[in-house]
Amino acid sequence: MPAIAPERLLADLRTLRSIGAQGKGVVRPAFSAKDMEARRWLASQLEAAGLEASIDGVGNVLGRSRNAGKALLLGSHSDTQPTGGWLDGALGVVYALEVARALAADKATAALPVDVVSFQDEEARFVGCLGSRSLTGALTPEMEEGAADKDGVRMADALRAAGLEGVPRARLQRERYRGFVEAHIEQGPTLEDTGKRIGVVTAIVGLRGIRFTFRGQQNHAGTTMMKTRRDASAALYELAHRINTEFPKAAAERTVWTMGRLRVEPNATSIVPGYADLDLQFRDAADAPLDALQKIALRIAAEMNARGGVRIEATPSRAPIPPTEMDTGLQRHIEAAAERHAPGHWMRMPSGAFHDAGIVSALLPSAMLFIPSIGGISHDFAEDSRDEDIVLGCQVLADAVESVLREGSGR
Amino acid sequence: MPAIAPERLLADLRTLRSIGAQGKGVVRPAFSAKDMEARRWLASQLEAAGLEASIDGVGNVLGRSRNAGKALLLGSHSDTQPTGGWLDGALGVVYALEVARALAADKATAALPVDVVSFQDEEARFVGCLGSRSLTGALTPEMEEGAADKDGVRMADALRAAGLEGVPRARLQRERYRGFVEAHIEQGPTLEDTGKRIGVVTAIVGLRGIRFTFRGQQNHAGTTMMKTRRDASAALYELAHRINTEFPKAAAERTVWTMGRLRVEPNATSIVPGYADLDLQFRDAADAPLDALQKIALRIAAEMNARGGVRIEATPSRAPIPPTEMDTGLQRHIEAAAERHAPGHWMRMPSGAFHDAGIVSALLPSAMLFIPSIGGISHDFAEDSRDEDIVLGCQVLADAVESVLREGSGR
Repeated sequence: MPAIAPERLLADLRTLRSIGAQGKGVVRPAFSAKDMEARRWLASQLEAAGLEASIDGVGNVLGRSRNAGKALLLGSHSDTQPTGGWLDGALGVVYALEVARALAADKATAALPVDVVSFQDEEARFVGCLGSRSLTGALTPEMEEGAADKDGVRMADALRAAGLEGVPRARLQRERYRGFVEAHIEQGPTLEDTGKRIGVVTAIVGLRGIRFTFRGQQNHAGTTMMKTRRDASAALYELAHRINTEFPKAAAERTVWTMGRLRVEPNATSIVPGYADLDLQFRDAADAPLDALQKIALRIAAEMNARGGVRIEATPSRAPIPPTEMDTGLQRHIEAAAERHAPGHWMRMPSGAFHDAGIVSALLPSAMLFIPSIGGISHDFAEDSRDEDIVLGCQVLADAVESVLREGSGR
Repeated sequence: MPAIAPERLLADLRTLRSIGAQGKGVVRPAFSAKDMEARRWLASQLEAAGLEASIDGVGNVLGRSRNAGKALLLGSHSDTQPTGGWLDGALGVVYALEVARALAADKATAALPVDVVSFQDEEARFVGCLGSRSLTGALTPEMEEGAADKDGVRMADALRAAGLEGVPRARLQRERYRGFVEAHIEQGPTLEDTGKRIGVVTAIVGLRGIRFTFRGQQNHAGTTMMKTRRDASAALYELAHRINTEFPKAAAERTVWTMGRLRVEPNATSIVPGYADLDLQFRDAADAPLDALQKIALRIAAEMNARGGVRIEATPSRAPIPPTEMDTGLQRHIEAAAERHAPGHWMRMPSGAFHDAGIVSALLPSAMLFIPSIGGISHDFAEDSRDEDIVLGCQVLADAVESVLREGSGR
């Protein structure tokens, strides 16, 4: 059984944290100077661990094992949100580095082939999951064309500034791999709330978005009688509250929905609004609840339109993300390792957030392992996890990797 | 019976319209160069009509009759919204000028005392109804202190730029007046919708405002389960929709309420909002429905607070304006004149918008006369009224004024 080195693991996480540190948080958006510094640091660590390291044309760091046989790919992303937490993707990247080292250090496992990756721009400065899309052949020219960040910086210029212009882009060869495992903080409170220490991800939830627009008539709030009003805000409140009232009847246990972005025009106390819009986002690990909720939302809008008054339109607000099942074979190896190191303190759960594993799973059997987030907080400077959970998660991953590769190689 | 001169009336309205004209609209905010030009023009017209004209220290134009006996004060305001319509307050100001001229031109009425006023800043560039407040002694130092417009211009600087620094401020002497009559466009669709041509205002509606704040917990929209959420937006939708559902049960025939301004933070599609606020404004011509609605709104908030989760607070969003009854004696004179010139085509109605008459009524018996607004549109470049309605309204006012002053003087 490979033994990870807890102090080395925590020290490396702290070193990575120091690159772009701001207070308790980290500011290391994709292609920034700090992001590239972190990627060069990682590449040097991978070389020191005996892997063949490179940074490809979109900034992915790839460390290839020199061992024979079908490899297991491990990793996550080292770019952060504009004001990010220190663990997020960094945890899975340093786990991968440590597992590769732990396996190499033990004669019994030194021949097992483990590749390490840090994907670029998972956090969507330019294109969400840019790196994993590029590595798996899922990046289309349309996605790149005209891509710019929220400050108007173009991706092409960011690539040039990062020294990546003309650098070849790597591709993962399906035949090389047994599969992919990504470790990550949970980013939610479920593990903490239930007293569990490891989450074995069953699926990455699918996501759909509907944008509702409400077209009424702007009027004076004092002189326009209620019966003649076509108040866009009143229609928005009704639709949103009815969705919140009716969705629970059709939702699955872990279905979530949110109406967190809206606009009311002209948004003045003394004016009956003539226009409003509202985003509904809903997520589940299966298509059936998503289909049912979509039907309910559109029926409510249709019922309100049939009454006349404010005109409601519903259009998709984004390309839907289908739910992605994680590979059950890989899950079983993680479950067995979790039960060995934390008996009774692990659980199967879907991931409510999206991850690179959702992209890679189209090419390779993929799985994920979660550790608890303190207070469920993420994408915030306050994001944190307990040292003992960080260490436990890495040991569980190392055991699972050995188990997968022994089975895969027939050894 | 005094005969107004329709062409002179319309020509003067067009002249006033030309001062600050932009397209079909007028841009003549209080104390602007165009506003002061319009006020000097009016003062010259009042002098030409035989009145003693002056502009006081806050920009009010006052034309005092040289006739003996208790006078009737007529007028409105000539300042406009930042992008205003051409009639709004200008109509009542030019009506007052024309009525004064019409009475003076007829031997039978030449001795009747009519004063004319154009109040300053009814449209609240700095202080809503500044001019009528100042003339009636209702302007407090606190209202002026630090008063600034939405661009940060201070009222003190605007007064100086308008050449009003050090100019004495006038006061209306209660003993001088029989009362005050203000003519205005309706600013709503009721007259047009019911085929009426004159509205006799029974009361200016009172107005109350409640600001609701919703404090929950900001979270990730994918990883935070529904049962653990404290979603500020969901609470806002529920409260607003329940208000819209329950208010009709307690509302009077012309009660109105509006929730046209809100804020949701951080207002992002993928984030459960942790904070929201919402303004509720409600108006009626009597206190009883306002009391009932306020009670309902606070009860709903209390019921939601009792459930826990999002914390709702309700605070007054502004100083309430109590409903103001118009003087019934003056109303009867206007009704009689309306019935004479437009038999069956006038109606009694409250004013849903606030007016200077609501301020002056604290000092003098006050009344208002409305003419129809095409499409109910106001505070917009598209604001308009038909010429025949403009002429009719002025003739009705002239007759009513003669009738009031003959009764008042016992002649």
